[in-house]
Amino acid sequence: MAARPDNTHQARLLRLLRDEGARSRAELGEVVQLSRSKLALELDRLVTLGLVESAGLAVSRGGRRSGIMRVASRVRFVGIDIGATSIDVAVTNGELEVLGHLSTPADVRDGPAIILDQALELLGKLRAKGVATEINGAGIGLPGPVSFREGMPIAPPIMPGWDRFPVLEAMSQELRCPVLVDNDVNVMALGESHAGLARSVDNFLLVKIGTGIGCGIVVNGEIYRGVSGSAGDIGHIRVDDRGPTCSCGNTGCLEALFGGTALARDAVVAARSGRSPFLAERLSETGALTAQDVAAAATAGDAVAGQMIREGGRHIGKVLASLVSFFNPGLVIIAGEVADLGHILLAQIRSVVYQRSLPLATGNLPIVLSELGGTAGVIGATRLISDHVFSGTHA
Amino acid sequence: MAARPDNTHQARLLRLLRDEGARSRAELGEVVQLSRSKLALELDRLVTLGLVESAGLAVSRGGRRSGIMRVASRVRFVGIDIGATSIDVAVTNGELEVLGHLSTPADVRDGPAIILDQALELLGKLRAKGVATEINGAGIGLPGPVSFREGMPIAPPIMPGWDRFPVLEAMSQELRCPVLVDNDVNVMALGESHAGLARSVDNFLLVKIGTGIGCGIVVNGEIYRGVSGSAGDIGHIRVDDRGPTCSCGNTGCLEALFGGTALARDAVVAARSGRSPFLAERLSETGALTAQDVAAAATAGDAVAGQMIREGGRHIGKVLASLVSFFNPGLVIIAGEVADLGHILLAQIRSVVYQRSLPLATGNLPIVLSELGGTAGVIGATRLISDHVFSGTHA
Repeated sequence: MAARPDNTHQARLLRLLRDEGARSRAELGEVVQLSRSKLALELDRLVTLGLVESAGLAVSRGGRRSGIMRVASRVRFVGIDIGATSIDVAVTNGELEVLGHLSTPADVRDGPAIILDQALELLGKLRAKGVATEINGAGIGLPGPVSFREGMPIAPPIMPGWDRFPVLEAMSQELRCPVLVDNDVNVMALGESHAGLARSVDNFLLVKIGTGIGCGIVVNGEIYRGVSGSAGDIGHIRVDDRGPTCSCGNTGCLEALFGGTALARDAVVAARSGRSPFLAERLSETGALTAQDVAAAATAGDAVAGQMIREGGRHIGKVLASLVSFFNPGLVIIAGEVADLGHILLAQIRSVVYQRSLPLATGNLPIVLSELGGTAGVIGATRLISDHVFSGTHA
Repeated sequence: MAARPDNTHQARLLRLLRDEGARSRAELGEVVQLSRSKLALELDRLVTLGLVESAGLAVSRGGRRSGIMRVASRVRFVGIDIGATSIDVAVTNGELEVLGHLSTPADVRDGPAIILDQALELLGKLRAKGVATEINGAGIGLPGPVSFREGMPIAPPIMPGWDRFPVLEAMSQELRCPVLVDNDVNVMALGESHAGLARSVDNFLLVKIGTGIGCGIVVNGEIYRGVSGSAGDIGHIRVDDRGPTCSCGNTGCLEALFGGTALARDAVVAARSGRSPFLAERLSETGALTAQDVAAAATAGDAVAGQMIREGGRHIGKVLASLVSFFNPGLVIIAGEVADLGHILLAQIRSVVYQRSLPLATGNLPIVLSELGGTAGVIGATRLISDHVFSGTHA
């Protein structure tokens, strides 16, 4: 087990150095309200643990020149973001700057043995490039419900073979460092909170529209997971009583109407019916259609594809309008591959939410597309584990 | 301004004595982790402030007998719960035990001058009975959106004349003590958290079905108010695209379909159409119908009334099913006068929520009727202000 801080002062110092970068002892003392001698003791302990190091002397502010401290340059965190159809692995330094990031297509249905091996292989390639030797901690996001406490997926609908697989235990044995496992949407929300548009927002929602649809909920700067860890599971909210049957067995769920799987299904129907020449041509070329094909069709001016995206935006907007009235967030971020559908989708979502939610809740509510793209997940995963490793309370 | 504690140890001691009752110095020292001498200092200061007092000696645990401390017996909090059609005022001691509680019918549309005078009159009657001399703080609940920070209602739909009226300022001048103002649903949720079925639940929802419909949200034991204070405003979530027009201008809002106002409207229609002989007779007797008449009709076996309640339960259930999937609470409490509709309503709500939300979110989810009845609001209001008065951080 890696060295860990042993009190809240040390935890505050580490988080400060992580988020704000190198600081002089004088500045650190002011922020954490410690005397010079007490601060020196805490910093010495962090230096001994290998988590903090000296970085020279600050410019004099009149008296003795103050030493500059920073997170030790050899600290490394690993973020692993496992999606339904891809694996992303990144290595960051102690300030969560990405030093290396690799991605590969993958099928999560291949099961934990194969998928986790592929993730470790990507990490091995990054290590071979010299970005990491020792690892201080790893965060992992999975595309399904996760018991955060146990570090394992629980009855995940699109992950056959993963139910109750001990991901945390397996990976911490493999990596010999602290590991935390969470669902992919929570991890993305943390990424947005750390490095994205939500940096200065305490209460916000991140809606991920990928193969399925999920929502990350941040309350007072922390992920809200709910009582059994399923908070934000909005894909199965019923939108249309007469809608199509969902994989969950109910009818008219949001996910049955929109999202990667539903869009691919509707695109094939549109191609075969001859209503969309663009999609028909793509289908005959590749044998299958995805949300990306619908996006390409819409961009090329295909009317049916545009209509599919607007319809989807209306469904998302309906659900979001209720959640905005209920939760009164300061920001809503739309993310996930289907967010590539871009501004047609966003315009529709905004129009429905602004029309249907109360003015008091929407008065200052930005609804925006994520600007982090594929990195929100891996950054969020390193943020998750660094919070843990840097926190005195988990020592 | 009343005397206030000046640090977090004192705040913890006060809350402990409030919630757990009298405790020996030995027990207090163990819970707050203070040395005997440090604890004595803090308690002495609280005694000087008149907030804590000695209550004799504890039974010996082997060594010197430890002194028992309690919240000073002269501490008094006032809870004022202003509804659309009633005012409740209660006085509690420092342990939030109700020493006196008076209620009067009132019409909130009479405006703040008349309504607040009526509340002060009720308080005067309680004081005349000797339950309070000095008051340490007062909490006030209002039936509409409130800016908690400013202590005033903001554009409240059913409270003409109250918009931006400085309730906090007016009442603190009148009572010469700290005052906090919140909306009635938040205050009820605090009441349930302190003395009701939510005592041991950290994350729960309280749905109040009164004249309108609102929801109190408790996250980690604290009221979640949202970014502009409108969180929980679920009355205007759209349930039926083809539903009736709502007072807010949209169509098919939950409140336009169910709640006291909608039920009274539907009851009159049922009476006049001759479909409900029971309601027709009531209407001819009294000239008006309320939710209570519908409840009485249903209890008497009136089929139309029973149908109205089941229909309403379905609408509430639809909205709650979405919120349960999103928020994954540990408990849902149904409260408000319309909750008198009782078990027909509850059965319907449960059936829809358990059927529509994901098993992971409903697996251990009790949905219950409030057992506090009319006292949740006043108890919650005293809890709100006592948290403030006992808290070192607000000193």
